[in-house]
Amino acid sequence: MVRAVVFRATPLLFAMASLGPLAAQSGPQSVSRPRPLELGLRIGTFACGEHDAITDVPGVRVGHCTLKEGGGACTGVTVVIPHPGNPFREKVPAAIAVQNGFGKLAGSTQVEELGELETPIALTNTLAVGTVVDALVAWTLAQPGNQEVRSVNAVVGETNDGRLNDIRARFVRDVHVETAIAEARGGAIAGGCVGAGAGTSCLGWKGGIGTSSRRVGDHVIGVLVQTNFGGRLTVLGRELDDPRAAPGEERKEPPADERGSCMIVIATDAPIDARNLRRLAVRSFAGMARTGASFSNGSGDYAIAFCTADALRIRDDGRKTTGGEVLRNDAMSSLFLAVADAVEQAILDSLLRAETTRGNGVVIEAVPVDAVRRAAGR
Amino acid sequence: MVRAVVFRATPLLFAMASLGPLAAQSGPQSVSRPRPLELGLRIGTFACGEHDAITDVPGVRVGHCTLKEGGGACTGVTVVIPHPGNPFREKVPAAIAVQNGFGKLAGSTQVEELGELETPIALTNTLAVGTVVDALVAWTLAQPGNQEVRSVNAVVGETNDGRLNDIRARFVRDVHVETAIAEARGGAIAGGCVGAGAGTSCLGWKGGIGTSSRRVGDHVIGVLVQTNFGGRLTVLGRELDDPRAAPGEERKEPPADERGSCMIVIATDAPIDARNLRRLAVRSFAGMARTGASFSNGSGDYAIAFCTADALRIRDDGRKTTGGEVLRNDAMSSLFLAVADAVEQAILDSLLRAETTRGNGVVIEAVPVDAVRRAAGR
Amino acid sequence: MVRAVVFRATPLLFAMASLGPLAAQSGPQSVSRPRPLELGLRIGTFACGEHDAITDVPGVRVGHCTLKEGGGACTGVTVVIPHPGNPFREKVPAAIAVQNGFGKLAGSTQVEELGELETPIALTNTLAVGTVVDALVAWTLAQPGNQEVRSVNAVVGETNDGRLNDIRARFVRDVHVETAIAEARGGAIAGGCVGAGAGTSCLGWKGGIGTSSRRVGDHVIGVLVQTNFGGRLTVLGRELDDPRAAPGEERKEPPADERGSCMIVIATDAPIDARNLRRLAVRSFAGMARTGASFSNGSGDYAIAFCTADALRIRDDGRKTTGGEVLRNDAMSSLFLAVADAVEQAILDSLLRAETTRGNGVVIEAVPVDAVRRAAGR
Amino acid sequence: MVRAVVFRATPLLFAMASLGPLAAQSGPQSVSRPRPLELGLRIGTFACGEHDAITDVPGVRVGHCTLKEGGGACTGVTVVIPHPGNPFREKVPAAIAVQNGFGKLAGSTQVEELGELETPIALTNTLAVGTVVDALVAWTLAQPGNQEVRSVNAVVGETNDGRLNDIRARFVRDVHVETAIAEARGGAIAGGCVGAGAGTSCLGWKGGIGTSSRRVGDHVIGVLVQTNFGGRLTVLGRELDDPRAAPGEERKEPPADERGSCMIVIATDAPIDARNLRRLAVRSFAGMARTGASFSNGSGDYAIAFCTADALRIRDDGRKTTGGEVLRNDAMSSLFLAVADAVEQAILDSLLRAETTRGNGVVIEAVPVDAVRRAAGR
Repeated sequence: MVRAVVFRATPLLFAMASLGPLAAQSGPQSVSRPRPLELGLRIGTFACGEHDAITDVPGVRVGHCTLKEGGGACTGVTVVIPHPGNPFREKVPAAIAVQNGFGKLAGSTQVEELGELETPIALTNTLAVGTVVDALVAWTLAQPGNQEVRSVNAVVGETNDGRLNDIRARFVRDVHVETAIAEARGGAIAGGCVGAGAGTSCLGWKGGIGTSSRRVGDHVIGVLVQTNFGGRLTVLGRELDDPRAAPGEERKEPPADERGSCMIVIATDAPIDARNLRRLAVRSFAGMARTGASFSNGSGDYAIAFCTADALRIRDDGRKTTGGEVLRNDAMSSLFLAVADAVEQAILDSLLRAETTRGNGVVIEAVPVDAVRRAAGR
Repeated sequence: MVRAVVFRATPLLFAMASLGPLAAQSGPQSVSRPRPLELGLRIGTFACGEHDAITDVPGVRVGHCTLKEGGGACTGVTVVIPHPGNPFREKVPAAIAVQNGFGKLAGSTQVEELGELETPIALTNTLAVGTVVDALVAWTLAQPGNQEVRSVNAVVGETNDGRLNDIRARFVRDVHVETAIAEARGGAIAGGCVGAGAGTSCLGWKGGIGTSSRRVGDHVIGVLVQTNFGGRLTVLGRELDDPRAAPGEERKEPPADERGSCMIVIATDAPIDARNLRRLAVRSFAGMARTGASFSNGSGDYAIAFCTADALRIRDDGRKTTGGEVLRNDAMSSLFLAVADAVEQAILDSLLRAETTRGNGVVIEAVPVDAVRRAAGR
Repeated sequence: MVRAVVFRATPLLFAMASLGPLAAQSGPQSVSRPRPLELGLRIGTFACGEHDAITDVPGVRVGHCTLKEGGGACTGVTVVIPHPGNPFREKVPAAIAVQNGFGKLAGSTQVEELGELETPIALTNTLAVGTVVDALVAWTLAQPGNQEVRSVNAVVGETNDGRLNDIRARFVRDVHVETAIAEARGGAIAGGCVGAGAGTSCLGWKGGIGTSSRRVGDHVIGVLVQTNFGGRLTVLGRELDDPRAAPGEERKEPPADERGSCMIVIATDAPIDARNLRRLAVRSFAGMARTGASFSNGSGDYAIAFCTADALRIRDDGRKTTGGEVLRNDAMSSLFLAVADAVEQAILDSLLRAETTRGNGVVIEAVPVDAVRRAAGR
Repeated sequence: MVRAVVFRATPLLFAMASLGPLAAQSGPQSVSRPRPLELGLRIGTFACGEHDAITDVPGVRVGHCTLKEGGGACTGVTVVIPHPGNPFREKVPAAIAVQNGFGKLAGSTQVEELGELETPIALTNTLAVGTVVDALVAWTLAQPGNQEVRSVNAVVGETNDGRLNDIRARFVRDVHVETAIAEARGGAIAGGCVGAGAGTSCLGWKGGIGTSSRRVGDHVIGVLVQTNFGGRLTVLGRELDDPRAAPGEERKEPPADERGSCMIVIATDAPIDARNLRRLAVRSFAGMARTGASFSNGSGDYAIAFCTADALRIRDDGRKTTGGEVLRNDAMSSLFLAVADAVEQAILDSLLRAETTRGNGVVIEAVPVDAVRRAAGR
């Protein structure tokens, strides 16, 4: 079952009464828009996990809260929760790679310095980062066992959905973060125009949330992306024939001023320390490159990787040491391949699942499934 | 004239009615607690600016909003505004140096990537960063000329004032940021227990906000610090005799678990690009080291430097180029010396100006002025 | 005219008498092996420069010295010289991006710190970096006008050609660096199995030196690559049908333990400061990703970018300032696209121009031109 | 017993016959020039190790080869060897912190990327880095068990001794590196004007090699420094009265154009991974700051830290994992204090042990011991 909570957003009122999911929206997503595997599209040679999702990494949950269909809102919040316990009291090894730091990612210096993650990772829109940090802090303070917590490093990423979303109205509120956390679950997860992907666009089409996973030996690596970047959509290396182009129109470079961003979240149960998690995160941009990303000045592209291996959790257990055996540098290469493949597929997933969206007086079309199929030679 | 707005904070109400400054507080600060120069303490060989303050850099303004004396609040907000214009439309070259990234500094990756600052810099407490980011975003969106702005990189630093301040109550609100900005001014500025320094402690004594400046050739370099770090206070290289120590007590290392942080803001009118601003920022930790800082795991220490030179402002003027002549690498050495000296002096300033403070059931004493004087051999 | 000097290397003797170019080698290269443009292969939408080479950036010269055909030597030295003047006395803005730091690149911290390049850039094999640094230092000390020089930051990159080359024999000597510098020239330059590319392999085929360039507005950006990395060759997004594979053989991931590396040198006459040169360098890995690179643990991948704009040279002219107007951040996006395209094409160029090579008891085949042509749909 | 091999260097001949140590030199060093502990100078509160030396970390050895007294040579090589085994086959966790990257440190990107050290660390002069890299590579290839090694990351640091040493003559040869390695030993080690410290100057006086160590709980941390930086010598926070100054002469800033550098090597047997080793290395500059360092543009200051804990060695044992329990972030603070104290003391050690030196037509005086004693209040 795939769930995402959709708020009917209005500029003046975000009543809890509007919390019910809009059946009209989630229905079509799961029915009419295929995921890559349904088109026979699998990037690379590794097998996908059961749900081809970041939630294939045991314990990882994802939740969305979507703000839509009212007063210009077309935005939301997506959270990735590393494990079922208290994230603050069982921190996980983590790292961040910055491809292009034109973004407002919160929490980066502490993750880099301490090599650990202590909150859920939240994604949202550019102007909502402060609010979402605030909400994650409040949520963390309120968790059982956190009564003495006085310092919280909330990790919040963003992309700019200001074309479809009236971003200046700043619709996101604390309650939307709480809802996304409350709705978080494992298994099959919603994608496309949900949560932080509600209002994004990518490679000339409607973007959104995508996910994918790979099995590498005994381990799983999963990724979730919020796609909102420029370039020309390239499927298995072929640029999509754009049915919107005039016949005979000359091929041009993509508009150079595109704002955008791609946020990438990576989870794995392989025992990897923060240093190699950063190296893993770096490789995710190779997958992004292969989808046709232009990596323009305005595209703030970040990857956040964390490790769920129980033996590597950092607990406040009164001991002076932590950690244990970790993968060697030269055991990372398969994972490096897998993460690039999974990111490429997750980006295609976000595009395939996203539907044509109208917002803020603008319409952004969903990518035509047949065009993807043709480009992929399927 | 030295002004800081003090709110009487209550957990339930932050009424605008409480906006009036508390005369009782600002009085003693300016009268009885001396600044370093008044004790004959000047670090290094460069001359200080007129006010020995960051505001000696033309155009730079500082504002404080202090939350105190009610329901456990002992915290606040301090802002540094780079110039009198619209900071978003006249961005300034900027850079950040991270000595120890155990902190929640917002906005760092974009400053590092783009080499520019587009908002006031705000300082506050650890758990208020989200709120203050949000407030800076709102303020920026509301400025004349910013109607089309859809992306704002708010730079917000913090230290943890959770000993004197009931930090979990999260007292800071948007209005406090707005007030700090509204109160910002040049010239002599308040220090000690004001704004983001209300509840901090430093080197075993009450810390707070300090400032200092140096003239280097035709240019001025100014710093402002929010001091909240551990170690043993060392004045001109001499550890302070701690009158609180039992006679004959053996000298011990400072408690190793000290949380804390030091936020350092550096302004200069010398024409320096982002790369050399980062190098300048790195040198500020030498000044911090000389005050006896222990640079413990929990101390998140950051320096943010910006350049106010008009020729280097980044304006949205439709041109493809920007910038102009900048100081050569080998012309930086004098500024490197000066920034370390100014930071050392600003930290002493924060300690000298701060008064004994009670909050949250704890009392932290002001450093005894006579002990500083003796250590300094004055 | 395309020139590279080939030494007949013997373990005991590198006589100057062997300096004459081997006609047998350079002949086939220029005749029988096509460059990408000759196959109709042009990556992206920007026009190529006159020679589709890094030397299309005015003033940039390239020289090779190849060690081959004797006692196990299959290696060499390639140099890129930024301008016709004295590189130490007219330093150019420069930056380095590290995709995977498993490499021995010399000179990186100083380029990063000072943002400038003061020697030719030399490429060679992994175990020859010390020798080549030494030779560049000696060369720099000996240049007219450098009598007082006491500090030289030689920038030397490498990849590991230890499959075809008896790398442990350490054939490279000072004279080979001097020769490469002496042979350096603009215009059409040799590629494939020359200089530092003599013994490299790439994406399962013989690699080598490749080059390409793009015109962006009034400016030119050129790249030169030394290709020696693993993965599966992908041309315009299509994996090459490997004629060596058994029919029906299942597609496997590339061997995960591949050592290798890719060195990328980028030159441009656009006025770009060190900060944006680093951002430019980062984008080159997107081009590398699109060729099928696996970015394995053992692949040390680096990009070095420099700017030849006269107004930005750093001269020792007694002034305290330097530099001038530079491209704005938001004027970089076209160059970001162009550099990725040029790197992708330069890698293909290196493969197309390289010939089947035997060395050290191993044969590495040249990529079949027809297979490339078919993959490219040409 | 304290040993360093001194070569009588001549520009034309570095005969092995000159290998005998010069009794005349090592005698006075150990007799007349005291180490800090002999003056009662101990920085901080932690106890020193048995020899107050980096060799107090079990297994660590240090060797020097000094080139002096002939034809302008006043330079040398110092090596720190992490353990008695084969450094390439038992790599140790390692990290590098760059305070100011104006230097030619070789090997930095690989240490940063892989978090490991695979050769001895060598220190030398600025123009000898290439030669010393080459020699370390040759030495590594020649070690028993390394017959298949084809990639060696030599870590070589340097400072510029070009005032006392005719640096352009490039006296250092492979044999000097081999000699330093052959002479390496544990226990008491030579300091002052030996090895890479032969020709350095520091804080206005003759610098050289210094060392110190601290016990922190069950562990030892040791440092070795090559001091060659500018500033004003400050002992326990008091600037030294310079007996060379004219009476009544006004105090000036130190000359801003000083070249120089400080290389810092840190060893510990505490179980620390590469991430926290980097954090440890960062703290060493606090100790350097407290000695009066000016951190000028031209001073390339680096710290290299490694961990000798057996359980953390990286061996080629066919397993996919490595490592084990490591110190938690919050267990690092004591070590952070200790490393700053040890670096401060090691710098004083280098100055106290160094003797007045004449070279290249220049005389640099040893710091007067009595002046240090007075400044220290001893």
